[in-house]
Amino acid sequence: MRHLDHVGVAVPDLDAALKLWKALLGEEPVIEDVEGQKVRTATFPSGIELLAPLSAASPISRFLDKRGAGIHHVTLRVQDLDAELKRLKDAGVRLINEEPVPGAGGCRIAFVHPKATGGVLLELAEHE
Amino acid sequence: MRHLDHVGVAVPDLDAALKLWKALLGEEPVIEDVEGQKVRTATFPSGIELLAPLSAASPISRFLDKRGAGIHHVTLRVQDLDAELKRLKDAGVRLINEEPVPGAGGCRIAFVHPKATGGVLLELAEHE
Repeated sequence: MRHLDHVGVAVPDLDAALKLWKALLGEEPVIEDVEGQKVRTATFPSGIELLAPLSAASPISRFLDKRGAGIHHVTLRVQDLDAELKRLKDAGVRLINEEPVPGAGGCRIAFVHPKATGGVLLELAEHE
Repeated sequence: MRHLDHVGVAVPDLDAALKLWKALLGEEPVIEDVEGQKVRTATFPSGIELLAPLSAASPISRFLDKRGAGIHHVTLRVQDLDAELKRLKDAGVRLINEEPVPGAGGCRIAFVHPKATGGVLLELAEHE
């Protein structure tokens, strides 16, 4: 029903991070820009997604300034995002995205607010 | 070969966090103490592992003091932990555990040092 899809890692320098993680994982990533989030993503088959800001206005820039490089969010893959969001809204859970927005890889995504999870930025993703 | 196993979330109050995450996920966790790490773990089927310190000497206490509640580590499940550790050591990757130690659920685990990953505490786990 619901399982880990990927873990997003904020990185200030994508080239440096790619060198590190390619050696760590021995894998090749898929690179994709997500304009809506102003990030360039590099997703490895094992589920590590590097996130580098495409502009200073990116949420990843703000995260790097505030917290430094490291794990930014965790993503659960869900079957039916609309049903999950309705369930969470009905339960009074605070959401960043009340409606699905486009994510990497053609997914529909929505973020739950960290205040609702005890400090975790939780993304829900429905694959095509 | 290698895939996401779970994401560890540091929590100061396990009861409060359980209430939150049970509602968020609609799942029941498995509770287990890992004496070697001085933590109580609550692992949900979807791969979220809550971590509460069992003593002030726990690494989770130090993390909570320094960073606050939130994502603590990410765990990749591997087929052959000894081979992975040998590969990483040969590549000059800095490890916290040069040899496997016992983890939750009867796993053998080892942590890679955050300095080697750009700020991510990466756990490798081999299931029985």
